[in-house]
Amino acid sequence: MSGALAAGRRDMDFFGVAVIAFVTALGGGTIRDVVLGNYPIGWTQHPEYVYLVILAGLATTLIARFMHHMKRVFLMLDALGLVAFSLIGCNVALQLDYPPVVVIMAGMLTGISGGVLRDVLCNQVPVVFCRELYASVSLFVCVLFLVLRGLDWDSDLITLVCFGAGFAFRMLALRFAWKLPTFSYQQRWD
Amino acid sequence: MSGALAAGRRDMDFFGVAVIAFVTALGGGTIRDVVLGNYPIGWTQHPEYVYLVILAGLATTLIARFMHHMKRVFLMLDALGLVAFSLIGCNVALQLDYPPVVVIMAGMLTGISGGVLRDVLCNQVPVVFCRELYASVSLFVCVLFLVLRGLDWDSDLITLVCFGAGFAFRMLALRFAWKLPTFSYQQRWD
Amino acid sequence: MSGALAAGRRDMDFFGVAVIAFVTALGGGTIRDVVLGNYPIGWTQHPEYVYLVILAGLATTLIARFMHHMKRVFLMLDALGLVAFSLIGCNVALQLDYPPVVVIMAGMLTGISGGVLRDVLCNQVPVVFCRELYASVSLFVCVLFLVLRGLDWDSDLITLVCFGAGFAFRMLALRFAWKLPTFSYQQRWD
Repeated sequence: MSGALAAGRRDMDFFGVAVIAFVTALGGGTIRDVVLGNYPIGWTQHPEYVYLVILAGLATTLIARFMHHMKRVFLMLDALGLVAFSLIGCNVALQLDYPPVVVIMAGMLTGISGGVLRDVLCNQVPVVFCRELYASVSLFVCVLFLVLRGLDWDSDLITLVCFGAGFAFRMLALRFAWKLPTFSYQQRWD
Repeated sequence: MSGALAAGRRDMDFFGVAVIAFVTALGGGTIRDVVLGNYPIGWTQHPEYVYLVILAGLATTLIARFMHHMKRVFLMLDALGLVAFSLIGCNVALQLDYPPVVVIMAGMLTGISGGVLRDVLCNQVPVVFCRELYASVSLFVCVLFLVLRGLDWDSDLITLVCFGAGFAFRMLALRFAWKLPTFSYQQRWD
Repeated sequence: MSGALAAGRRDMDFFGVAVIAFVTALGGGTIRDVVLGNYPIGWTQHPEYVYLVILAGLATTLIARFMHHMKRVFLMLDALGLVAFSLIGCNVALQLDYPPVVVIMAGMLTGISGGVLRDVLCNQVPVVFCRELYASVSLFVCVLFLVLRGLDWDSDLITLVCFGAGFAFRMLALRFAWKLPTFSYQQRWD
């Protein structure tokens, strides 16, 4: 849905909307699978995901004018998606026996690189690198997941705790506009 | 050739022209092979393609000033390339036994993502998402290919019909400036 | 380090700095491994590289204000890195028995595509396509490497000669502002 809105800001046609929606939703998992060598890539085995994502993107164009009033709901769904994608990414890397730092990076790749691709295709600086804590939430969830797993917690409980903590973290970051300090460097060398 | 012209619009050096030409021509197939896990990737086994593409890119810089007069020829060659790339993409995915929706996406990836990469590297919003029917032609060709194949037509006949119909569709779209409706969304949330 | 500075020019937060540093340093090798089908990808087996790169990126934000005075040292380190990455890329492709043109492209992919990814994520036209000889140095090193190898030189000697010649070439290009001719094409067709 955020992909469809970004496409709309660039006056793309409905084809572009479908492509950007697809890339935003499934691009993160694709990059993760390609980097980890995890073939065949998830959505190629589950065509229903492809239809679902494209439908959601096109449906967004119909309800876009009302979405302003549902901003809160939209951001909550987006936060849940971020946590879910991060956990899925961690699990995929774990099953392939990668070391912890790669597990964390796989989680973050799945969680945020769809949004990065969306912004690159829409020709803007990726917002996840400049705005409220978004990538940081993904990092937090992935580290929490690994720590609890190291403590031998039950896996359902881990999922529950990660969802709760990650969701709360993101909502608080949005509510109080938490940001990381930025690094500004304007000297040019030429 | 369209890659070389796009590089020229950004005042790139001849090295940049060669790289953008390469990415435009072979990038689509590379992305398709990476996503489908189809190793080794085509052009790594056919070095002659690499030379051909780089030569075509550099030759374009020599004839660029005259290309305005050959616009029609150039667009016809471009349309044929679009159909050919789409069909090749479908065939590769079919041979790897992917489901139909992935076959269609493989065809479209091969047909249009070279142009998308070109526009990303030249720092502009990809034209295939905003202009005349281009991606739609690729989609049409891929679906037509699968339908005719389902009807058990002879494979040479399928290729011929797809080329004819795809080429005619693209030419008509250019002639009458057919466009998909665009989705415009200018509200900002912050 | 160049990734961190580029992120600073876009006012990214510290997370963005770490990501851009990572992509600039390890992105070239990742793309090479993905294109060559060389799994598992290097840095996933050497987590220490990941920590090192992120630390270097963040350290750069601390010393950025003094880097102007160390410009010469920075550019020398950057040139050494360019040669080293190009040679590593060539070696990887050689071990996988790819033909010579692919070996050269693997070397160049490793040497320059990290910088290209950096510029794409920071939303600017990649400087390696417009400025002083940079990609050309990578090409020169890769070709020299293959030629000396064809002459059956000792592999340590080849490495030494490539480093010396590549470094000297880059320094001379910077000193005398050598550039390739650019191709400028401003006609629009619509």
